[in-house]
Amino acid sequence: MKIIEEAISKYGKILDGEIIKVDSFVNHQVNPSITNELARYFVDQFKDTRIDKVLTLETSGIPIAYAVASILDVNMVFAKKSKSKIVDEDVYSEEVRSFTRGTVSTVTVSKKYILPNENILIVDDFLAKGNAAIGLIKIIKQGGANCVGVCATIEKSFQGGRELLNAMGIKVVSGANIVAFDGNTPIFG
Amino acid sequence: MKIIEEAISKYGKILDGEIIKVDSFVNHQVNPSITNELARYFVDQFKDTRIDKVLTLETSGIPIAYAVASILDVNMVFAKKSKSKIVDEDVYSEEVRSFTRGTVSTVTVSKKYILPNENILIVDDFLAKGNAAIGLIKIIKQGGANCVGVCATIEKSFQGGRELLNAMGIKVVSGANIVAFDGNTPIFG
Repeated sequence: MKIIEEAISKYGKILDGEIIKVDSFVNHQVNPSITNELARYFVDQFKDTRIDKVLTLETSGIPIAYAVASILDVNMVFAKKSKSKIVDEDVYSEEVRSFTRGTVSTVTVSKKYILPNENILIVDDFLAKGNAAIGLIKIIKQGGANCVGVCATIEKSFQGGRELLNAMGIKVVSGANIVAFDGNTPIFG
Repeated sequence: MKIIEEAISKYGKILDGEIIKVDSFVNHQVNPSITNELARYFVDQFKDTRIDKVLTLETSGIPIAYAVASILDVNMVFAKKSKSKIVDEDVYSEEVRSFTRGTVSTVTVSKKYILPNENILIVDDFLAKGNAAIGLIKIIKQGGANCVGVCATIEKSFQGGRELLNAMGIKVVSGANIVAFDGNTPIFG
């Protein structure tokens, strides 16, 4: 989407030629006008699919996930991240490695909020190596539900996440797909 | 608002006669239909006030803050919480004690996202003792901006937050105001 590519080019900061900082419209300050336009685009890409729920991972995925859920008029669930490996019996959990932070988190969702046979759309701010998305897909499967796709505001497809997800039969849609960096300039695909 | 009171009565769980768990529509799963109706109500309570920005505190305040910002068509900023007392030079920070968790966090907002003379509306999920709101108001003041009000999905006014904020001249609006608990039943005011 032109609007996301333009926002990245205008406001994004590239760190070390691979990490992209988009504090001004995604990760700290959020622009509802851009976010709602992106949400409409995501919903349109799944117009032939029944979606029962939107799942994201706290924190920065919440605004775009909420905007998508709001258009679809379905509930949105945000998975929780914790550093502790000790989890309650009443949650599904997976360990997820963060590419940008270099940390491992335990991601949990209450068993009450993933129901058998639900069609669940994952919506998040970033897709890089696909670790977070794959953790969420495993949680969806633990609950006997189906992941119908993964939407990300910004994708860095050269880091392999899309390929992994497609190999699992999962449709991937992103607002902007960065296929490479030329120094500190993103190249969109 | 009847819709929030009903959701609390139907889905909320009261712990120890003072902590209210609303995982099913606020803190883990979010219902956009309820949240958007609440956002319209909040916006309506400030219809005679210029609002330039909405400020919340990660994580559970984000959906309702986003919904309000979306109606107003202004940016939403979520303040970040960390356990570390070491903060960058480029942020405003305040220490905030959490009532439910019994922990102290350092709350930060980048100096780029609070601008002098902006009218900022605080929107959060809970208002109890008012600690988080007062931390955010101090951050707004550090940036030379004005806090025009505090909105909370659920208020426990018997814990004194509203009184403190009103004494500071701050208007408070909540979706449901719990004035007391009768055992594990909330009494709405």
